[in-house]
Amino acid sequence: MPELRKDPVVGRWVIISTERSRRPTNFVPASKAKSTGFCPFCPGNEDKTPPAVYAARPEPAAMNAPGWTVRVVPNKFPALQIEGGLDRHGEGLYDKMNGVGAHEVVIESPDHQMELADLPVAHIHQVLLAYRERIIDLHKDKRLRYVLIFKNHGEQAGATLEHTHSQLIATPIIPRVLQEELEGARRYYELKERCVFCDIVHQETADNGRRVVAMNDRFVALEPFAPRFPFETWILPLRHDASYQLIGEPGEYRELASLLKDTLQRLNRALDRPPYNFVLHTAPVSDGDLEYYHWHLEITPNLTRIAGFEMGSGFHINPTSPEDAAQYLREIAIATPADPGR
Amino acid sequence: MPELRKDPVVGRWVIISTERSRRPTNFVPASKAKSTGFCPFCPGNEDKTPPAVYAARPEPAAMNAPGWTVRVVPNKFPALQIEGGLDRHGEGLYDKMNGVGAHEVVIESPDHQMELADLPVAHIHQVLLAYRERIIDLHKDKRLRYVLIFKNHGEQAGATLEHTHSQLIATPIIPRVLQEELEGARRYYELKERCVFCDIVHQETADNGRRVVAMNDRFVALEPFAPRFPFETWILPLRHDASYQLIGEPGEYRELASLLKDTLQRLNRALDRPPYNFVLHTAPVSDGDLEYYHWHLEITPNLTRIAGFEMGSGFHINPTSPEDAAQYLREIAIATPADPGR
Repeated sequence: MPELRKDPVVGRWVIISTERSRRPTNFVPASKAKSTGFCPFCPGNEDKTPPAVYAARPEPAAMNAPGWTVRVVPNKFPALQIEGGLDRHGEGLYDKMNGVGAHEVVIESPDHQMELADLPVAHIHQVLLAYRERIIDLHKDKRLRYVLIFKNHGEQAGATLEHTHSQLIATPIIPRVLQEELEGARRYYELKERCVFCDIVHQETADNGRRVVAMNDRFVALEPFAPRFPFETWILPLRHDASYQLIGEPGEYRELASLLKDTLQRLNRALDRPPYNFVLHTAPVSDGDLEYYHWHLEITPNLTRIAGFEMGSGFHINPTSPEDAAQYLREIAIATPADPGR
Repeated sequence: MPELRKDPVVGRWVIISTERSRRPTNFVPASKAKSTGFCPFCPGNEDKTPPAVYAARPEPAAMNAPGWTVRVVPNKFPALQIEGGLDRHGEGLYDKMNGVGAHEVVIESPDHQMELADLPVAHIHQVLLAYRERIIDLHKDKRLRYVLIFKNHGEQAGATLEHTHSQLIATPIIPRVLQEELEGARRYYELKERCVFCDIVHQETADNGRRVVAMNDRFVALEPFAPRFPFETWILPLRHDASYQLIGEPGEYRELASLLKDTLQRLNRALDRPPYNFVLHTAPVSDGDLEYYHWHLEITPNLTRIAGFEMGSGFHINPTSPEDAAQYLREIAIATPADPGR
């Protein structure tokens, strides 16, 4: 059983994943890990993953046979285990609990060669709806406090399998960065009675759009004022909504799909298809209608080494101003007439 | 002039280092960066660095000519600039100030081929005293709030020059991770009237030493209870001291040098000379005698990819338990009879 352990000084929880236990000699540098040719995410290999928990299919079909367009399966080597109680207990001055939670893989396309940015908008829309369905389903589990959706694209960004996919980790604690964001947003609301993200959207779209990358009727893609990384890009809904899974009509997810594709293509063109991560920031379980929080997506290309130093100090040095980055990205000509999904 | 900018939600300050500004095409993957053969840190090339601010020399000699054993110079491409006022101001809802601060390089040895772990204890002792002198000197600058000392060892850990060195960044704000640690330690002290690090040292050395790697009369090297990374190792003084630069007799630094060498050698042997970072955690400027804080050194080998995901969520999955890691490291036989410095 994996264990969740809390640092007694800063209160940071970590997962000690004993199921994935490794001896010193097992730390092969990731760059030496080679593709074996076989892909468990490709159609026809559905029996090589745990049975699906969700699938999008153009026609009624089995979830565990070819025919799906998006398929969500439990991770075969999960960092957390879905069965069991939390069993919180102490060990002297330390605190720990069982590593209970969900760890799922969202296989974004049946096509092994495609990457998310190159999928038609209609297909990306299906991926976004898969996120929504899984969040709604996992919010029913009373043991869980947060459902975290993220993507590692490219080996350097932590992807261990090439076939395009995102991941979901649902945890009995709120991840630290989200907790800090919730607290910061609440403090701002207490002071101003306004959502800080709404204020950001307002200032950024009013202020000559110096940091705006692209916009549509519902969403804005922008470089944040204080980005940790070069070309860090956030996509925010123009309208206040705390929770990703509760946004209005399904049409909004299509608008999001369209702007996400546009943004990823700009990053691909400007930075020669960089490895990247994105993390969906949304309200915790059962905190659906927060006035002070505003869901959004944070995309971070992996251009500079994120060393233990940044992790150790929280100190980021960014060599590219967000104003410059936004300008480069705005100037990219996005033309995809051949894309049937647009 | 570099700029310090504050994220309006979480309050995280970042340095936008315009002096190091890069266009999209300049993001050459770090793995392609090759050594040019010329090393500005080697003896004889003293004029290729800014003039030294400190040097250790066996005999009286110029700081900017061969003869030194440890040499500290301002970084030629500093992330922060030493001249100027802070000029704090707002920009709508955002906050920023000038990127004032110091960025120095501690050249740990004249020998280009050596790495820190292989230097004699007496030489490592000199490196540790150089840290002390620079902290004391920079604490006199009223604009600065923190002096951060860290080391990136190996390209994967962010080292851009091969010649063994550590770095110092002095900032007008307290780095986030240190701030959180200070706050956590203060809360614990308010509750218990004891230093949390003293309690950790006590419990770890009493509890069968399951997470202890090595010890001497003054220091303990241990795997923390909730490590973010496999083989993350902390060195703590057994006696309470908030500030690194204020520890008792100079003899203590020698004991630290000895245990640091021992620990780095164990990591080198267990993990085949891994890239690593270390960060010195010590009290902020002019908070020298805190009852609740306890300086220490955090060493983190770079064995797993630290992706934007961990940065984006604060969520760490560690595949090696600290109990296992400590056992592997304890079982390494350290024998250095040929080391004249021991």
